[in-house]
Amino acid sequence: MAGLYDDAQKIISASIQAALPDTAVKKALDEIVPVLPAGRLVLIACGKAAWQMASVAAKYLGSGISDGVVVTKYGHVAGEIPGVRCFEAGHPVPDENSFLGTGAALEAVSNLTEEDAVLFLVSGGGSALFEKPLVSPAELESITRQLLACGAEITEINTVRKRISAVKGGKFAQLCAPAHVYSVILSDIIGDPLDMIASGPAYPDGSTCSQAWDVIHKYGIKISEETEMCLGVETPKELHNVTTMVTGSVKQLCCAAAETAAELGYEPVILTDRLACQAREAGSFMGCIGRTHSEGGMAKAFIAGGETVVKLTGAGKGGRNQELALAAAAEIAGLDNVAVFSVGSDGTDGPTDAAGGYADGNTAAEILQKDGRTIEKVLAENDAYHALQASGGLIITGPTGTNVNDVAVVLILPKEMR
Amino acid sequence: MAGLYDDAQKIISASIQAALPDTAVKKALDEIVPVLPAGRLVLIACGKAAWQMASVAAKYLGSGISDGVVVTKYGHVAGEIPGVRCFEAGHPVPDENSFLGTGAALEAVSNLTEEDAVLFLVSGGGSALFEKPLVSPAELESITRQLLACGAEITEINTVRKRISAVKGGKFAQLCAPAHVYSVILSDIIGDPLDMIASGPAYPDGSTCSQAWDVIHKYGIKISEETEMCLGVETPKELHNVTTMVTGSVKQLCCAAAETAAELGYEPVILTDRLACQAREAGSFMGCIGRTHSEGGMAKAFIAGGETVVKLTGAGKGGRNQELALAAAAEIAGLDNVAVFSVGSDGTDGPTDAAGGYADGNTAAEILQKDGRTIEKVLAENDAYHALQASGGLIITGPTGTNVNDVAVVLILPKEMR
Repeated sequence: MAGLYDDAQKIISASIQAALPDTAVKKALDEIVPVLPAGRLVLIACGKAAWQMASVAAKYLGSGISDGVVVTKYGHVAGEIPGVRCFEAGHPVPDENSFLGTGAALEAVSNLTEEDAVLFLVSGGGSALFEKPLVSPAELESITRQLLACGAEITEINTVRKRISAVKGGKFAQLCAPAHVYSVILSDIIGDPLDMIASGPAYPDGSTCSQAWDVIHKYGIKISEETEMCLGVETPKELHNVTTMVTGSVKQLCCAAAETAAELGYEPVILTDRLACQAREAGSFMGCIGRTHSEGGMAKAFIAGGETVVKLTGAGKGGRNQELALAAAAEIAGLDNVAVFSVGSDGTDGPTDAAGGYADGNTAAEILQKDGRTIEKVLAENDAYHALQASGGLIITGPTGTNVNDVAVVLILPKEMR
Repeated sequence: MAGLYDDAQKIISASIQAALPDTAVKKALDEIVPVLPAGRLVLIACGKAAWQMASVAAKYLGSGISDGVVVTKYGHVAGEIPGVRCFEAGHPVPDENSFLGTGAALEAVSNLTEEDAVLFLVSGGGSALFEKPLVSPAELESITRQLLACGAEITEINTVRKRISAVKGGKFAQLCAPAHVYSVILSDIIGDPLDMIASGPAYPDGSTCSQAWDVIHKYGIKISEETEMCLGVETPKELHNVTTMVTGSVKQLCCAAAETAAELGYEPVILTDRLACQAREAGSFMGCIGRTHSEGGMAKAFIAGGETVVKLTGAGKGGRNQELALAAAAEIAGLDNVAVFSVGSDGTDGPTDAAGGYADGNTAAEILQKDGRTIEKVLAENDAYHALQASGGLIITGPTGTNVNDVAVVLILPKEMR
């Protein structure tokens, strides 16, 4: 099944390539640069991919940048960017450096005119990294801890936090006005909810003060007078100075997989770009799709992007993508014209050095022979890593520098092409 | 969303119609009758749909039947069939009447010539209903009980049981020789494993005596000398007097759904006809497919046949089809151009009077409003029946008289057609 394995590798490479910050930023700048106003251009980048995105933009724009600030995670600044100040800060919990970097960004966008523009590069992790509280850091921490402890949902938590932040919930874009903000987003959240990614610094807020108070009362959260004041100030419901572009997301990952599969001769079917069910169940479903279509006379590729979840029942090593591929292996066992693979775009699947897993009709037998366990047993132990290691089914890419969820693919060759 | 609901009803009716014993038997006889040899024709029918299948065949063939025997479940004989003796017997545990009816069938096929033929109508439940042990009934019961108690797999159990039966594992067809056997199958097992349906009375047995002994030793099963003798006699590995036709199965269910969907203007995509994962996870996956494609400009129908499983975590009322639809409801909430439904072809989903469930973009909100619970809560309580009752999403067909697993469908209308 070398043909299927090679095709899988090509599809994986092309998908990740399409979802890299470099690709996403270049694609956006190709559209933005021709329409930029004549004045200054300030570059602000936040999130785990901020340095990479800013670095690409700086190279693209050259001396076009008048000022710039990057706020990213510790260890994520990989060198100097001319004209741009880089801050490393706390994630997932914001710290003093988050506030410091965000403060510098706010300073850089103050006093802009209608002739100026802000290039705002947003990636996952921005909620913690791009933050300047309107209350004391201790109060922010206290409220966050209380909300997490009482089991509040993430939308409820954000509804409150947007109000005690100087930048979240569209407020950053408001502070940039009258300059226009070009918000370029690398999305790590399924469905690209623009008010959730980095808590939406440049996106109108759908939540209201009254909803925030509801959350406070529902869970009996203790707040200071400072916070009470904040909960009385409404977030922007409309923003006329913002253009938003999601140029890197699981959609791009799926589309690139589909395009590459088509180039390799498979008829691509994108099933979904928001898969969110259990990894092993998704694997079973996709394996069944493979077995059913293995009888057909067509080369097909069924593609599902998203982020599955793993229910831990054992203490083994693995990740959601490896578990999906392994569960699929049970369904396609014995077939010589079907493969299923799944890969995380960040190159890190669970706490492993693999990006994901690959399975074909030989996988189940190879695992039984070399590892001695049935797939059922491996799944019960959540130990997909070692089983796929035995079958040669680990996909290793190394860290990719992007994080736009995962993509899983069923490849089916027609019987005559085997 | 009346359009989607009406379309769902049409697809459900057409699918079940295509999988009815009547349709399956007529379709098979259209092919068999022209090639029948000149001699006698003996009708043997076993399984839960045996009476219905025999009744249709008798009407079709008229005076063409020289002898006939039906062995079905208690309460399943709905009247006399001219020239056919009907037996009602034990299911899922075979009893004296199983042996009596099967004995009558064996008698009817003894002394046939090459010019004669046997029309063998097989449906689910045949393993218990069509049985004549080569050992004492007490020994059969003892072995079955031991195998079940030690957690042996169904294939292991069958490997042993085929050898202590006079009819299982291809032996019935062997006893019909030299007459030709036309085996018409209504399949209730995913993937139509012909050696498993009714334990394959007219299908070559893939298992061996040595495998049977392995099972006996593996689990330390206590057996009599009689059984020891049986385990030394090999089952037929080839059968030259059998023509097998699966004319009713989940495949027909899926194809009919696809055809009807196409007639209604949807582009149909059959994903699989062997879905076997958890009901709620399949529902989540299918709901995600719906949401992703709701943005597209095409009317599409994604179809998945099979039989999902339910993990009980609560004490509510429901079934796998209702649970699948309910889980999908969470994913398609708020959309006005998507519906997901799932239905059991037997008209009975779990211990309820519903055949399955229907969900669209209003379902989640209606359940919250009228039933007061979130979908998450209903799923945790395994109480899909009452939630779908509140949203008007129960699909009621009454018992249909067939059982070829389930079919689940995602219907998507293009935005402009809403």
